[in-house]
Amino acid sequence: MRGMPETLFVGLSELLTMDASLARSGATAVQDAGERALGLLRDAAVLAGDDGRVAWVGAASDAPRRPGQRVVDLQGAVVLPGLVDAHTHLVYAGDRTQDFAARCAGESYEAVAARGGGIRLTVRATRAASRDELVELARPRLLDLVAHGVTTVEIKSGYGLTVADELKCLEVARRLADEGLARIVPTVLGAHIVPDEFKGDRGAYVRLVTDELLPEAARLRLARHVDVFCETGAFSLDETLRILDRGRELGFGLKVHAEQLTRTGAAAAAARLGAVSADHLERAEDEDIAAMAEHGTVAVLLPGAAVFLGARDRAPARRLLDAGVPVALSTDCNPGTCPSRHLPLMATLGCVYLGLAPHEALLGITRHAARALGLTDGTGTLAPGAPCDLAVCEAPGWRHIPYLMGHNPVRETWVAARQVHARATTRAGL
Amino acid sequence: MRGMPETLFVGLSELLTMDASLARSGATAVQDAGERALGLLRDAAVLAGDDGRVAWVGAASDAPRRPGQRVVDLQGAVVLPGLVDAHTHLVYAGDRTQDFAARCAGESYEAVAARGGGIRLTVRATRAASRDELVELARPRLLDLVAHGVTTVEIKSGYGLTVADELKCLEVARRLADEGLARIVPTVLGAHIVPDEFKGDRGAYVRLVTDELLPEAARLRLARHVDVFCETGAFSLDETLRILDRGRELGFGLKVHAEQLTRTGAAAAAARLGAVSADHLERAEDEDIAAMAEHGTVAVLLPGAAVFLGARDRAPARRLLDAGVPVALSTDCNPGTCPSRHLPLMATLGCVYLGLAPHEALLGITRHAARALGLTDGTGTLAPGAPCDLAVCEAPGWRHIPYLMGHNPVRETWVAARQVHARATTRAGL
Repeated sequence: MRGMPETLFVGLSELLTMDASLARSGATAVQDAGERALGLLRDAAVLAGDDGRVAWVGAASDAPRRPGQRVVDLQGAVVLPGLVDAHTHLVYAGDRTQDFAARCAGESYEAVAARGGGIRLTVRATRAASRDELVELARPRLLDLVAHGVTTVEIKSGYGLTVADELKCLEVARRLADEGLARIVPTVLGAHIVPDEFKGDRGAYVRLVTDELLPEAARLRLARHVDVFCETGAFSLDETLRILDRGRELGFGLKVHAEQLTRTGAAAAAARLGAVSADHLERAEDEDIAAMAEHGTVAVLLPGAAVFLGARDRAPARRLLDAGVPVALSTDCNPGTCPSRHLPLMATLGCVYLGLAPHEALLGITRHAARALGLTDGTGTLAPGAPCDLAVCEAPGWRHIPYLMGHNPVRETWVAARQVHARATTRAGL
Repeated sequence: MRGMPETLFVGLSELLTMDASLARSGATAVQDAGERALGLLRDAAVLAGDDGRVAWVGAASDAPRRPGQRVVDLQGAVVLPGLVDAHTHLVYAGDRTQDFAARCAGESYEAVAARGGGIRLTVRATRAASRDELVELARPRLLDLVAHGVTTVEIKSGYGLTVADELKCLEVARRLADEGLARIVPTVLGAHIVPDEFKGDRGAYVRLVTDELLPEAARLRLARHVDVFCETGAFSLDETLRILDRGRELGFGLKVHAEQLTRTGAAAAAARLGAVSADHLERAEDEDIAAMAEHGTVAVLLPGAAVFLGARDRAPARRLLDAGVPVALSTDCNPGTCPSRHLPLMATLGCVYLGLAPHEALLGITRHAARALGLTDGTGTLAPGAPCDLAVCEAPGWRHIPYLMGHNPVRETWVAARQVHARATTRAGL
């Protein structure tokens, strides 16, 4: 990345650094506790160095101006760190809209799956698709995330369920990463469900994951994390722990789909293994939450999935925060449980559906989401040293971002101080 | 409008005419009951006459081609009639994001209102704003609706609550109509709440509405419908009926906010007066539904408001449809209860939150919504004679429109065969 000039971004009406220690450095003193937590600066500027990282943030009037600097005027925008989507199933083929229609008509997610729809439908289609086809299918989804301000995206495998097909999906994620539209954090989710051909011998499939898939994914450096779907109809707690244990040995970060439809104890058990996140958590209990707090495991909540599935249970967001567990919010971007790519909408649902405060919801799609991916380089913040990834929003103020339900406030998206997306609209009067 | 050439739209992979009688006229026979209800044609074309109305629809191969015709290639789009938002509070001033934050922290809508937030905050700000200021505030909201495919918008007054301020808001709606970006259907909602200055004499405020505001709005032809918020803290059933009765005498169509937080019986009573719609209805009972069915009153459901308010009650969408009541879905576009301008998202919530089938949800933002506005000229359909208003969507198929929660599928919006919105995106690789 070296070789580009340093860039000074000016014209930020509000800058949410997501670093509370920076709230004092603005021209205007910030009083509100939420705004302090966001590290809010008004009338601010950001300087990106020639390495694409934040070199300086502060009041526009104090901005360092130097010859040869590129100056970008953001014209009064509200600026957040590039958003971080910490839980997506972005790479898949197949069409689940008939499943969707069946569920709207009252069929349960489990019933749809039992008659050959659900994950199995996606697995059949994904196995049949080539790398090139999967890239072409996944790219528009990624672009839609980017158009909503996302610059870092976790992508799980989990629709291949053979060694070759799982690696194929992770290679698709790498191809998307190489295209440079967003930063990709790949996760191997070979343990999504037991594929039909292993129905009679679940143990053999678990061994395929632990003895073949994970070592090969590690050797090829195709994944940063390993994830398991611990749920009735997917993997038991014992199977989950065998897979996570092996993942840990191989140097992967650990994640787990836990306590979604039934309570299995996976969140607490994974936390004790050092998991970076436990995800879903609609049915988490106080002891699960306590274990996550003790071990620094982030809660990744997916309120879009809860709404999309018509669930009546709501994840205990407030109890998690009160216990000291950081709460991230993600889209899921899952063809069955929530195909959304609108991460700001998840911030809204975090507020109205899960009871987060607006500032907590915005921390959940930036700073805490980066932590759920094990990123320690400042991603999800705009503190000095962090990647200069920006979600540039048109809004009267930062609270409008979660408030305007469904609105896409993002006008521009920048990765490493380079613009990767800009929205333009043409209108003709009658 | 005469004088423009006739326009032939080609390249429609799917055309949803919203007229079941047209489903047979396509090149491909439609089998699915939902697709028949949508009047779906595949590989279709639409001819707009020089009056901006649909002159012909059918299979692309049968399209009438004539010299001098303008031909517009929609490049494989899924095309719906321009969407109809049948319930909005689009014209207001003031900032309710602090109310939003308070509600996220657990305060009830009623408690926020009781301490001076809520509707009263918006009334103070709207009274203080000039016509020009209100137009500038409302236009971006209207443009956001248009960018989501909406071509017909009901706009309620209700934040003025004096004769002069109510008329001011209706004049703002007329100014927006004159700008030609969308068709506007104005509704006078003087009976939104009793303003503070009439606290000691509610009867005097009701008389102000019936004896001064409604006659003046009728004389100036500033509203097509009259609406009343019948609710604890707003207007009683008796007051509601006095206002609706007077509205009927003056030639207004009748609407009512009914059975939202408490059951008042307003939906059934308004239906018996011939109301075109009863709106909200979370707490409607079977006898309310039966009265609406008997009198042809449309149900306007606002699932975004239910989600945004964290309500646990869900409107009885299925029972309404089963009873023969047409169900429309609207945004609300209300600064307190749902500021969304994303009507396709309401179709998604209609499915996942209210249990509609995908085709029922799409009928709810087109044909049935037009009926809720008393429009009988084919608005909300693309049958011959209807206005040639189009929502041109990028989607693999029509079910993806409600399925992709939060996604804006609309690439172009057309009113009377003239393009009023097109989305363009620029992207630069890294």
